[in-house]
Amino acid sequence: MQDLLARPVLPHAGKVWLIGAGPGAIDLITVRGAALLGQAEVVLHDALVTSEILGLCSQAHLVSVGKRSGQRSTAQTVINQQLIACARRFERVVRLKGGDPMLFGRADEELRALESADIRYEIVPGITTAFAAAAAICQPLTKRGVARNVAFFTSTTAKGETDEAALPSCDTLIQYMGGHEAISTAKRLLAVGKSPDTPVIAIENVSRTNQKVMRMTLIHMAQGLPDCSGPVLVMIGEALRARIKDS
Amino acid sequence: MQDLLARPVLPHAGKVWLIGAGPGAIDLITVRGAALLGQAEVVLHDALVTSEILGLCSQAHLVSVGKRSGQRSTAQTVINQQLIACARRFERVVRLKGGDPMLFGRADEELRALESADIRYEIVPGITTAFAAAAAICQPLTKRGVARNVAFFTSTTAKGETDEAALPSCDTLIQYMGGHEAISTAKRLLAVGKSPDTPVIAIENVSRTNQKVMRMTLIHMAQGLPDCSGPVLVMIGEALRARIKDS
Repeated sequence: MQDLLARPVLPHAGKVWLIGAGPGAIDLITVRGAALLGQAEVVLHDALVTSEILGLCSQAHLVSVGKRSGQRSTAQTVINQQLIACARRFERVVRLKGGDPMLFGRADEELRALESADIRYEIVPGITTAFAAAAAICQPLTKRGVARNVAFFTSTTAKGETDEAALPSCDTLIQYMGGHEAISTAKRLLAVGKSPDTPVIAIENVSRTNQKVMRMTLIHMAQGLPDCSGPVLVMIGEALRARIKDS
Repeated sequence: MQDLLARPVLPHAGKVWLIGAGPGAIDLITVRGAALLGQAEVVLHDALVTSEILGLCSQAHLVSVGKRSGQRSTAQTVINQQLIACARRFERVVRLKGGDPMLFGRADEELRALESADIRYEIVPGITTAFAAAAAICQPLTKRGVARNVAFFTSTTAKGETDEAALPSCDTLIQYMGGHEAISTAKRLLAVGKSPDTPVIAIENVSRTNQKVMRMTLIHMAQGLPDCSGPVLVMIGEALRARIKDS
């Protein structure tokens, strides 16, 4: 980053594209996102963005501002300052986030910072992990007569702390970064009367070559997930029950 | 469709790709989805898939199996039969759905039908309308300290009937195809104590050139939305409050 800050400030600031990288596979980013990455001069990316995706912007200066649950990460205010500093020195700056930038992404803080600094920006959506997971395991998140609505939630804060917010009351529940709190989430759902037999699918490293799918029921989840080192998506609800072949 | 069925049956059935077209803009489909469309022999698509996107598969036979709220559409069992009939006659068949195929897409029924007929398939996720909308209006769906979780729901059935399922209890509520039920949804939320001042953003034709953004509060929504002919996404919650510029 230091060498980038040594560059001269432009007479007019450049533009920032806030882009969703999708789940990690190189071809699960949007066509628009891939094209913009190929034109970027600087890319500030999260730790969870894969090297495959970063291969789409090999011409750019790469700055890892990664946040990762439980690991050392750049404070949000520092990321905001870096974004602004880059936009003052380069025409085309990309802020690249895993999944979609508008879900659990601290986008509000980054957009406010850019607006305060009068930096132009544009947002490009990405495939959020839940949809990549549903596609990978061939299980729809909604199902006629069984699951009419879906909630996305997380209780891991940026600092890796957990905060027990009320669990949403939806047919299908998707907990992002849910690995560490699996036992707590299961116990709380059982306590409010969710059936012990409710299907659960936990997936580590969704859409990547080392993807690991764990199928269980809510009562088993209450005893904990197998050890995982990558990010884990936890999906709970009747829609996740394995299909029995008809006929 | 009749001329396609006149084709000879293959010795081994082809493969079906269930692909999410995203919100409509030609470059908001995934790189994988665009590549597969370019190689398809037959594409069975919903009515809501835009002509822009269909331009990516101009080499293919196009079959509209469109469903659109309140309009005549092909019954789901007929779609299932058409999919199977095409896969028995062509190597590369695409079932193209607006948004993401695993959310409100009747995917469960199509996958069951394909499995029963021993047809191989693969699923490619797409940008669901809510994320495209959040990007277009620059409003994140979650916001630290304000909105920790998001629910996606719909109450319009495939036949255009509405069914008043319980409203989810999430900080941010996103109702797909929510235009016709706007008054009812608003009244029900007010009745359970949601603040009349809660911000609402209704968006018609998300990501398309004729996109229309309507900002209001919950109490105004209870009086109805302006007339819309396209699909309307209704977004409700504090996260949708317009940002006031800092500093």
